[in-house]
Amino acid sequence: MQRQTVFSEAMARKYPEQVVLVTTRSREGKANVMAVGWVTIASGEPPMFVLGIDHDAYTFELIRQTEEFVVAFPSEHMDSQTLFAGSYSGRTKDKFAEADIAVQNGVDVKAPLIRDAVANFECKLVQVVQPGDCPLVIGQVVAAHVNQDETVRRLYTLAKGYVLGGVRLQQQ
Amino acid sequence: MQRQTVFSEAMARKYPEQVVLVTTRSREGKANVMAVGWVTIASGEPPMFVLGIDHDAYTFELIRQTEEFVVAFPSEHMDSQTLFAGSYSGRTKDKFAEADIAVQNGVDVKAPLIRDAVANFECKLVQVVQPGDCPLVIGQVVAAHVNQDETVRRLYTLAKGYVLGGVRLQQQ
Repeated sequence: MQRQTVFSEAMARKYPEQVVLVTTRSREGKANVMAVGWVTIASGEPPMFVLGIDHDAYTFELIRQTEEFVVAFPSEHMDSQTLFAGSYSGRTKDKFAEADIAVQNGVDVKAPLIRDAVANFECKLVQVVQPGDCPLVIGQVVAAHVNQDETVRRLYTLAKGYVLGGVRLQQQ
Repeated sequence: MQRQTVFSEAMARKYPEQVVLVTTRSREGKANVMAVGWVTIASGEPPMFVLGIDHDAYTFELIRQTEEFVVAFPSEHMDSQTLFAGSYSGRTKDKFAEADIAVQNGVDVKAPLIRDAVANFECKLVQVVQPGDCPLVIGQVVAAHVNQDETVRRLYTLAKGYVLGGVRLQQQ
Protein backbone atom coordinates (compact mmCIF):
# COMPACT_ATOMS: atom_id res chain seq x y z
CA MET A 1 0.00 0.00 0.00
CA GLN A 2 1.27 3.46 -0.92
CA ARG A 3 1.25 6.62 1.17
CA GLN A 4 1.80 10.07 -0.32
CA THR A 5 5.03 11.83 0.60
CA VAL A 6 7.51 14.41 -0.65
CA PHE A 7 9.62 13.65 -3.73
CA SER A 8 12.86 13.43 -1.78
CA GLU A 9 11.58 10.67 0.51
CA ALA A 10 10.21 8.63 -2.39
CA MET A 11 13.37 9.13 -4.47
CA ALA A 12 15.50 7.95 -1.54
CA ARG A 13 14.13 4.48 -2.31
CA LYS A 14 16.03 4.44 -5.60
CA TYR A 15 19.23 2.81 -4.33
CA PRO A 16 21.33 1.01 -5.49
CA GLU A 17 21.72 3.39 -8.44
CA GLN A 18 24.23 3.16 -11.29
CA VAL A 19 27.09 5.64 -11.45
CA VAL A 20 29.43 6.40 -14.35
CA LEU A 21 32.62 8.35 -14.85
CA VAL A 22 32.75 10.91 -17.67
CA THR A 23 36.13 11.92 -19.06
CA THR A 24 36.97 14.89 -21.26
CA ARG A 25 40.11 16.58 -22.63
CA SER A 26 40.48 20.29 -23.33
CA ARG A 27 41.87 21.61 -26.62
CA GLU A 28 45.06 22.33 -24.69
CA GLY A 29 45.30 18.65 -23.73
CA LYS A 30 44.18 18.81 -20.08
CA ALA A 31 42.08 15.78 -19.16
CA ASN A 32 39.30 15.73 -16.57
CA VAL A 33 36.94 13.19 -15.01
CA MET A 34 33.69 13.53 -13.08
CA ALA A 35 31.11 11.15 -11.62
CA VAL A 36 27.53 11.17 -12.96
CA GLY A 37 24.51 9.39 -11.49
CA TRP A 38 21.82 10.64 -13.86
CA VAL A 39 22.52 8.48 -16.90
CA THR A 40 20.79 6.02 -19.18
CA ILE A 41 20.85 4.71 -22.73
CA ALA A 42 19.05 7.10 -25.10
CA SER A 43 19.13 5.16 -28.40
CA GLY A 44 19.93 1.65 -29.54
CA GLU A 45 20.88 2.22 -33.17
CA PRO A 46 22.97 4.29 -33.26
CA PRO A 47 23.83 3.76 -29.59
CA MET A 48 23.59 6.89 -27.44
CA PHE A 49 23.76 7.89 -23.77
CA VAL A 50 21.95 10.74 -22.04
CA LEU A 51 23.67 12.27 -18.98
CA GLY A 52 22.68 15.00 -16.56
CA ILE A 53 25.71 17.31 -16.26
CA ASP A 54 25.51 20.58 -14.38
CA HIS A 55 26.11 23.89 -16.21
CA ASP A 56 28.85 24.81 -13.80
CA ALA A 57 30.80 21.59 -14.22
CA TYR A 58 34.18 21.82 -15.92
CA THR A 59 33.13 18.66 -17.77
CA PHE A 60 30.18 20.55 -19.27
CA GLU A 61 32.50 23.32 -20.44
CA LEU A 62 34.88 20.81 -22.05
CA ILE A 63 32.06 18.89 -23.75
CA ARG A 64 30.79 22.17 -25.20
CA GLN A 65 34.33 23.03 -26.31
CA THR A 66 35.33 19.70 -27.87
CA GLU A 67 32.00 17.93 -28.48
CA GLU A 68 33.60 14.71 -27.25
CA PHE A 69 33.65 12.67 -24.05
CA VAL A 70 33.99 9.13 -22.70
CA VAL A 71 31.45 7.34 -20.48
CA ALA A 72 33.03 4.66 -18.27
CA PHE A 73 31.44 2.17 -15.90
CA PRO A 74 33.73 2.28 -12.83
CA SER A 75 34.45 -1.08 -11.25
CA GLU A 76 33.34 -1.89 -7.73
CA HIS A 77 36.98 -1.49 -6.68
CA MET A 78 36.94 2.17 -7.75
CA ASP A 79 34.77 3.54 -4.94
CA SER A 80 37.30 6.01 -3.50
CA GLN A 81 38.37 7.18 -6.96
CA THR A 82 34.78 7.72 -8.06
CA LEU A 83 33.96 9.60 -4.87
CA PHE A 84 37.01 11.82 -5.45
CA ALA A 85 36.01 12.43 -9.08
CA GLY A 86 32.57 13.48 -7.88
CA SER A 87 33.73 15.69 -5.05
CA TYR A 88 36.13 18.16 -6.66
CA SER A 89 36.28 20.33 -9.75
CA GLY A 90 38.80 19.69 -12.50
CA ARG A 91 39.32 23.47 -12.64
CA THR A 92 41.39 23.25 -9.47
CA LYS A 93 42.62 19.65 -9.31
CA ASP A 94 44.17 17.04 -11.58
CA LYS A 95 41.82 14.33 -10.45
CA PHE A 96 43.58 11.57 -12.39
CA ALA A 97 46.83 12.26 -10.55
CA GLU A 98 45.37 12.95 -7.12
CA ALA A 99 43.02 9.95 -7.12
CA ASP A 100 45.47 7.69 -8.96
CA ILE A 101 43.08 6.91 -11.81
CA ALA A 102 44.94 5.10 -14.60
CA VAL A 103 44.05 5.90 -18.20
CA GLN A 104 44.73 4.66 -21.70
CA ASN A 105 44.07 6.17 -25.11
CA GLY A 106 40.85 5.70 -27.02
CA VAL A 107 40.61 5.46 -30.80
CA ASP A 108 38.08 8.06 -31.94
CA VAL A 109 38.06 10.77 -29.28
CA LYS A 110 40.85 12.47 -27.35
CA ALA A 111 39.25 12.07 -23.92
CA PRO A 112 40.95 9.19 -22.08
CA LEU A 113 39.59 5.73 -21.30
CA ILE A 114 39.60 4.61 -17.67
CA ARG A 115 41.97 1.63 -17.71
CA ASP A 116 40.41 -0.29 -14.81
CA ALA A 117 36.75 0.42 -15.62
CA VAL A 118 34.30 -2.34 -16.49
CA ALA A 119 33.67 -0.73 -19.89
CA ASN A 120 34.33 2.55 -21.73
CA PHE A 121 32.25 4.24 -24.42
CA GLU A 122 33.78 6.96 -26.61
CA CYS A 123 31.07 9.51 -27.45
CA LYS A 124 30.52 12.44 -29.80
CA LEU A 125 28.09 15.13 -28.68
CA VAL A 126 24.72 14.98 -30.46
CA GLN A 127 22.52 17.43 -28.58
CA VAL A 128 21.99 19.20 -25.27
CA VAL A 129 18.42 19.66 -24.03
CA GLN A 130 17.32 21.23 -20.79
CA PRO A 131 13.80 20.44 -19.64
CA GLY A 132 14.45 21.35 -15.98
CA ASP A 133 17.35 22.56 -13.86
CA CYS A 134 20.06 20.40 -15.45
CA PRO A 135 21.42 20.13 -19.00
CA LEU A 136 20.92 16.67 -20.48
CA VAL A 137 23.93 15.86 -22.63
CA ILE A 138 23.26 13.31 -25.37
CA GLY A 139 26.22 11.59 -26.98
CA GLN A 140 26.55 8.97 -29.67
CA VAL A 141 28.85 6.04 -28.96
CA VAL A 142 31.53 5.84 -31.65
CA ALA A 143 33.78 3.21 -30.05
CA ALA A 144 33.42 0.76 -27.16
CA HIS A 145 35.91 -1.03 -24.94
CA VAL A 146 35.68 -3.63 -22.17
CA ASN A 147 37.96 -4.68 -19.37
CA GLN A 148 39.97 -7.73 -20.36
CA ASP A 149 39.06 -9.12 -16.94
CA GLU A 150 35.49 -10.30 -17.43
CA THR A 151 34.91 -10.81 -13.70
CA VAL A 152 35.10 -7.09 -12.88
CA ARG A 153 31.70 -5.69 -11.81
CA ARG A 154 30.14 -2.22 -11.82
CA LEU A 155 30.09 0.23 -8.96
CA TYR A 156 26.79 1.57 -7.59
CA THR A 157 25.66 4.31 -5.27
CA LEU A 158 24.26 2.24 -2.40
CA ALA A 159 22.73 4.90 -0.16
CA LYS A 160 22.39 8.64 0.37
CA GLY A 161 25.59 10.52 1.12
CA TYR A 162 27.46 8.95 -1.83
CA VAL A 163 27.99 5.57 -0.22
CA LEU A 164 29.56 3.59 -3.09
CA GLY A 165 30.11 -0.13 -3.50
CA GLY A 166 29.30 -3.31 -5.35
CA VAL A 167 26.12 -5.36 -5.41
CA ARG A 168 25.45 -9.08 -5.62
CA LEU A 169 22.47 -10.79 -7.18
CA GLN A 170 19.94 -11.79 -4.58
CA GLN A 171 20.30 -15.52 -5.07
CA GLN A 172 24.08 -15.44 -4.68
CA MET B 1 43.28 -2.90 -19.27
CA GLN B 2 40.68 -2.23 -21.95
CA ARG B 3 40.27 -3.96 -25.29
CA GLN B 4 38.13 -2.50 -28.08
CA THR B 5 34.92 -4.34 -28.92
CA VAL B 6 31.43 -3.83 -30.37
CA PHE B 7 28.91 -1.73 -28.46
CA SER B 8 26.69 -4.69 -27.63
CA GLU B 9 29.45 -6.60 -25.85
CA ALA B 10 30.51 -3.57 -23.82
CA MET B 11 26.92 -2.68 -22.96
CA ALA B 12 26.30 -6.24 -21.76
CA ARG B 13 28.50 -5.28 -18.79
CA LYS B 14 25.82 -2.85 -17.56
CA TYR B 15 23.91 -5.28 -15.32
CA PRO B 16 22.32 -5.05 -12.78
CA GLU B 17 20.27 -2.24 -14.36
CA GLN B 18 17.27 -0.46 -12.87
CA VAL B 19 13.81 -1.13 -14.31
CA VAL B 20 10.61 0.84 -13.78
CA LEU B 21 6.93 0.34 -14.55
CA VAL B 22 5.10 3.12 -16.39
CA THR B 23 1.31 3.34 -16.06
CA THR B 24 -1.12 5.32 -18.20
CA ARG B 25 -4.89 5.63 -18.56
CA SER B 26 -6.73 6.44 -21.80
CA ARG B 27 -9.39 9.13 -22.00
CA GLU B 28 -11.92 6.28 -22.05
CA GLY B 29 -10.56 5.03 -18.73
CA LYS B 30 -8.53 2.02 -19.88
CA ALA B 31 -5.34 1.65 -17.86
CA ASN B 32 -2.06 0.18 -19.12
CA VAL B 33 1.37 -0.64 -17.74
CA MET B 34 4.74 -1.30 -19.39
CA ALA B 35 8.30 -1.97 -18.23
CA VAL B 36 11.06 0.54 -19.08
CA GLY B 37 14.79 0.07 -18.57
CA TRP B 38 16.05 3.31 -20.13
CA VAL B 39 15.26 5.75 -17.35
CA THR B 40 16.95 8.32 -15.14
CA ILE B 41 16.28 11.53 -13.25
CA ALA B 42 16.35 14.54 -15.60
CA SER B 43 15.95 17.45 -13.15
CA GLY B 44 16.09 17.98 -9.41
CA GLU B 45 13.97 21.11 -9.01
CA PRO B 46 11.37 20.62 -10.31
CA PRO B 47 11.89 16.84 -10.22
CA MET B 48 11.67 15.13 -13.62
CA PHE B 49 12.29 11.73 -15.16
CA VAL B 50 13.43 10.93 -18.69
CA LEU B 51 12.29 7.58 -20.15
CA GLY B 52 12.97 5.85 -23.45
CA ILE B 53 9.57 4.69 -24.75
CA ASP B 54 9.18 3.23 -28.22
CA HIS B 55 6.96 4.97 -30.81
CA ASP B 56 4.93 1.84 -31.30
CA ALA B 57 4.18 1.32 -27.59
CA TYR B 58 0.56 1.76 -26.50
CA THR B 59 2.04 3.64 -23.53
CA PHE B 60 3.56 6.20 -25.90
CA GLU B 61 0.18 6.69 -27.58
CA LEU B 62 -1.55 7.20 -24.22
CA ILE B 63 1.11 9.62 -22.96
CA ARG B 64 0.69 11.67 -26.15
CA GLN B 65 -3.10 11.55 -25.68
CA THR B 66 -3.32 12.42 -21.97
CA GLU B 67 0.09 14.02 -21.21
CA GLU B 68 0.13 12.08 -17.94
CA PHE B 69 1.74 8.92 -16.59
CA VAL B 70 3.09 7.29 -13.44
CA VAL B 71 6.63 5.95 -12.93
CA ALA B 72 6.82 3.14 -10.35
CA PHE B 73 9.82 1.29 -8.93
CA PRO B 74 8.65 -2.36 -8.91
CA SER B 75 9.64 -4.33 -5.83
CA GLU B 76 11.98 -7.30 -6.05
CA HIS B 77 8.91 -9.51 -5.51
CA MET B 78 7.35 -8.23 -8.77
CA ASP B 79 9.65 -10.02 -11.21
CA SER B 80 6.99 -12.06 -13.02
CA GLN B 81 4.60 -9.10 -13.16
CA THR B 82 7.28 -6.80 -14.55
CA LEU B 83 8.31 -9.37 -17.14
CA PHE B 84 4.67 -9.73 -18.20
CA ALA B 85 4.26 -5.93 -18.40
CA GLY B 86 7.32 -5.78 -20.63
CA SER B 87 6.36 -8.71 -22.88
CA TYR B 88 2.88 -7.84 -24.17
CA SER B 89 1.07 -4.82 -25.60
CA GLY B 90 -1.77 -3.18 -23.73
CA ARG B 91 -3.56 -2.94 -27.07
CA THR B 92 -4.40 -6.64 -26.82
CA LYS B 93 -4.19 -7.48 -23.12
CA ASP B 94 -5.36 -6.07 -19.79
CA LYS B 95 -1.98 -6.51 -18.17
CA PHE B 96 -3.16 -5.50 -14.70
CA ALA B 97 -5.75 -8.30 -14.69
CA GLU B 98 -3.67 -10.95 -16.42
CA ALA B 99 -0.54 -10.37 -14.32
CA ASP B 100 -2.48 -9.65 -11.14
CA ILE B 101 -0.95 -6.20 -10.60
CA ALA B 102 -2.82 -4.37 -7.83
CA VAL B 103 -3.39 -0.62 -8.20
CA GLN B 104 -4.61 2.33 -6.20
CA ASN B 105 -5.59 5.85 -7.19
CA GLY B 106 -3.14 8.72 -7.37
CA VAL B 107 -3.97 12.30 -6.52
CA ASP B 108 -2.96 14.44 -9.50
CA VAL B 109 -3.07 12.15 -12.54
CA LYS B 110 -5.57 9.51 -13.64
CA ALA B 111 -2.98 6.81 -14.38
CA PRO B 112 -2.94 4.31 -11.51
CA LEU B 113 -0.31 3.80 -8.83
CA ILE B 114 1.17 0.31 -8.42
CA ARG B 115 0.08 -0.67 -4.93
CA ASP B 116 3.01 -3.00 -4.13
CA ALA B 117 5.76 -0.91 -5.75
CA VAL B 118 8.64 0.56 -3.73
CA ALA B 119 7.60 4.06 -4.81
CA ASN B 120 5.34 5.79 -7.36
CA PHE B 121 5.80 9.15 -9.07
CA GLU B 122 2.86 10.86 -10.76
CA CYS B 123 4.12 12.77 -13.80
CA LYS B 124 2.89 15.38 -16.29
CA LEU B 125 4.47 15.35 -19.74
CA VAL B 126 6.99 18.17 -20.28
CA GLN B 127 8.67 17.32 -23.57
CA VAL B 128 9.52 14.54 -26.01
CA VAL B 129 12.91 14.64 -27.74
CA GLN B 130 14.32 12.10 -30.14
CA PRO B 131 18.07 12.18 -30.66
CA GLY B 132 18.28 8.61 -32.00
CA ASP B 133 15.91 5.70 -32.62
CA CYS B 134 13.76 6.10 -29.51
CA PRO B 135 11.59 8.94 -28.22
CA LEU B 136 12.77 10.25 -24.84
CA VAL B 137 9.73 11.16 -22.78
CA ILE B 138 10.39 13.79 -20.09
CA GLY B 139 7.85 14.15 -17.30
CA GLN B 140 7.66 16.37 -14.26
CA VAL B 141 6.84 14.69 -10.95
CA VAL B 142 3.72 16.29 -9.46
CA ALA B 143 3.10 13.83 -6.61
CA ALA B 144 5.14 11.06 -4.97
CA HIS B 145 4.21 7.99 -2.94
CA VAL B 146 6.14 5.30 -1.08
CA ASN B 147 5.31 1.80 0.09
CA GLN B 148 4.29 1.82 3.72
CA ASP B 149 6.60 -1.16 4.12
CA GLU B 150 10.05 0.44 4.26
CA THR B 151 11.85 -2.89 3.86
CA VAL B 152 10.65 -3.45 0.29
CA ARG B 153 13.51 -3.19 -2.23
CA ARG B 154 13.69 -2.40 -5.95
CA LEU B 155 13.77 -4.88 -8.79
CA TYR B 156 16.65 -4.93 -11.28
CA THR B 157 17.42 -6.51 -14.61
CA LEU B 158 20.23 -8.86 -13.62
CA ALA B 159 21.34 -10.24 -16.97
CA LYS B 160 20.52 -10.36 -20.68
CA GLY B 161 17.25 -12.02 -21.59
CA TYR B 162 15.25 -10.03 -19.03
CA VAL B 163 16.43 -11.96 -16.00
CA LEU B 164 14.85 -9.94 -13.17
CA GLY B 165 15.51 -10.02 -9.44
CA GLY B 166 16.77 -8.23 -6.38
CA VAL B 167 20.30 -7.25 -5.40
CA ARG B 168 22.11 -7.07 -2.10
CA LEU B 169 24.87 -4.72 -1.08
CA GLN B 170 28.26 -6.34 -1.42
CA GLN B 171 29.06 -6.36 2.27
CA GLN B 172 25.79 -8.03 3.23
